[in-house]
Amino acid sequence: MKIAELIPKYRQDINNRLAEIYSNGPKTLTEPINYVLNGAGKRLRPLLAIFSAEACGGSKNDVLSPALAIEILHNFTLVHDDIMDRDLIRHGKETVHHKWDDGVAILTGDAMLSLALDLINQSPKSCHKQMKIFIEGLLAVCEGQAIDKEFETKPSVSIDDYIHMIDLKTGYMIGLAAQIGATSAGVDDEISKAVRDYGRLLGRAFQIQDDYFEIFSDSNNMGKSLESDIMLGKKTFLMIHALGKNSREIKNAIDNTRKDFKNGMEQIREYMRASGIQDTAREEINNIIELADAQLSQLDIKKKKLLYFSELIRKRGH
Amino acid sequence: MKIAELIPKYRQDINNRLAEIYSNGPKTLTEPINYVLNGAGKRLRPLLAIFSAEACGGSKNDVLSPALAIEILHNFTLVHDDIMDRDLIRHGKETVHHKWDDGVAILTGDAMLSLALDLINQSPKSCHKQMKIFIEGLLAVCEGQAIDKEFETKPSVSIDDYIHMIDLKTGYMIGLAAQIGATSAGVDDEISKAVRDYGRLLGRAFQIQDDYFEIFSDSNNMGKSLESDIMLGKKTFLMIHALGKNSREIKNAIDNTRKDFKNGMEQIREYMRASGIQDTAREEINNIIELADAQLSQLDIKKKKLLYFSELIRKRGH
Repeated sequence: MKIAELIPKYRQDINNRLAEIYSNGPKTLTEPINYVLNGAGKRLRPLLAIFSAEACGGSKNDVLSPALAIEILHNFTLVHDDIMDRDLIRHGKETVHHKWDDGVAILTGDAMLSLALDLINQSPKSCHKQMKIFIEGLLAVCEGQAIDKEFETKPSVSIDDYIHMIDLKTGYMIGLAAQIGATSAGVDDEISKAVRDYGRLLGRAFQIQDDYFEIFSDSNNMGKSLESDIMLGKKTFLMIHALGKNSREIKNAIDNTRKDFKNGMEQIREYMRASGIQDTAREEINNIIELADAQLSQLDIKKKKLLYFSELIRKRGH
Repeated sequence: MKIAELIPKYRQDINNRLAEIYSNGPKTLTEPINYVLNGAGKRLRPLLAIFSAEACGGSKNDVLSPALAIEILHNFTLVHDDIMDRDLIRHGKETVHHKWDDGVAILTGDAMLSLALDLINQSPKSCHKQMKIFIEGLLAVCEGQAIDKEFETKPSVSIDDYIHMIDLKTGYMIGLAAQIGATSAGVDDEISKAVRDYGRLLGRAFQIQDDYFEIFSDSNNMGKSLESDIMLGKKTFLMIHALGKNSREIKNAIDNTRKDFKNGMEQIREYMRASGIQDTAREEINNIIELADAQLSQLDIKKKKLLYFSELIRKRGH
């Protein structure tokens, strides 16, 4: 079967399993948890875990439970981050804290984490190892989010510090998906770490893409509300470059978004085009994806699906 | 060494380890996490885990890491619950969301959970088993909190439903502490489950004591702000009994706390005394602790420290 045909099939398997993860519990939890897990996510992380398992000689069935765990972990972070960022829309639907309340959203995330951990703990084979990297991934994503919050009040942030932050916040978890696939196939540490690093780099590219889309696509495409991020002064790859080049012009434009969002955004876009930052971001994304693929080049594994996955990321939003 | 002398020694060991759990990380996390872990908690759960291990022939050192994990899990729930309940004071100090903000408090809890999981995962011997009961405990406490929230808007709640809720919210975690101690000592399932059930019953008594203190002690003794719970109409053991007997009189008194807190509380206390509900609660607490101790009676373990622990609970607040 062609990979392009495999993806919707795998996605369906993932969605079917997610739909039956949690049905017995108090309504205050079953309703928001199923609302979140039945959302329109692209399931990229579990797809990567499965592809990575298959690349390393493993099978979808061996990795499905930990793959679902990572998707749930990812959604847990979204539910909690949306409270912190006061985002109202996610994947085209109301966020949990907006549809219910903050308390329900906090509890929903906490309980989802327990469901994710249970899925990791189910595979007795490599459970201890997988649990270890899963727990590290959880801490990394919290630390990344903490640093991101610290950036909001810092006058300037270096690109290196920014990359460190997105590696923790986004890269680690995509690296975790790739690594858990490799681990489930029983490969040695050298291969599993290279596959992990491939995933982490893809995650880095993915986050810079998000930063790019925040400015160059409208909120319908992103499926979340952008206003808050721009107005909160979030430090993104493009914003850091802009603040470094001409902080007065970009600060004015950000201020303008608070008065007239459409107009301010147009000013920001115009500045990003004229200053060449748009091109810089595009090149950076491509370079990082090439770097990711290069991690795989020396490995004796079946790379086809992973390279296809890289292309999927590269072309996303087009 | 006498048990009474052992307790401050063990507590010191616990506090020393907690103080060095998390130092390398972003300030947004290290500061609140260490603020919470260096709080004035009584460390009852890790003490119970150690006593339970020793009762079953194990040692403090074998159980210390999972015992700390349970203390951190407990504090994670406090940090998140305090956000939901808008509590301002905990253990005599400002709550995390009040001293920092909601976002910091959400992240602090999430990261603490990762630290707790890591401690469970460190003991390779019984790691899979301990992880399983830990994960179940996490879900139980979320479900208990969810049901407690549901109760706030219900006109009436039965005592059975209430007991089910506090078993999830409070009992499971104290049962988990007892069980993890037994498991670390390598006893068979029958003993570890009886020790768990002993802990769960103690937890049930403990929660009804909290309900009792909420009404019959002042907020300085409790170390947290009571106003919110009373005014939110939280269903407690005593309130459910009162609403069942004479819902008009108790509702008036609750309404009065919103206008004049001291006066309203005096009315509530007076009603609880005159109606006999104060005595009912005291008897119930004693009966449950006796039931807890009875779980141990048939077991071939060294019960002395556990029975001492039951007495500690029974006498708490006196």
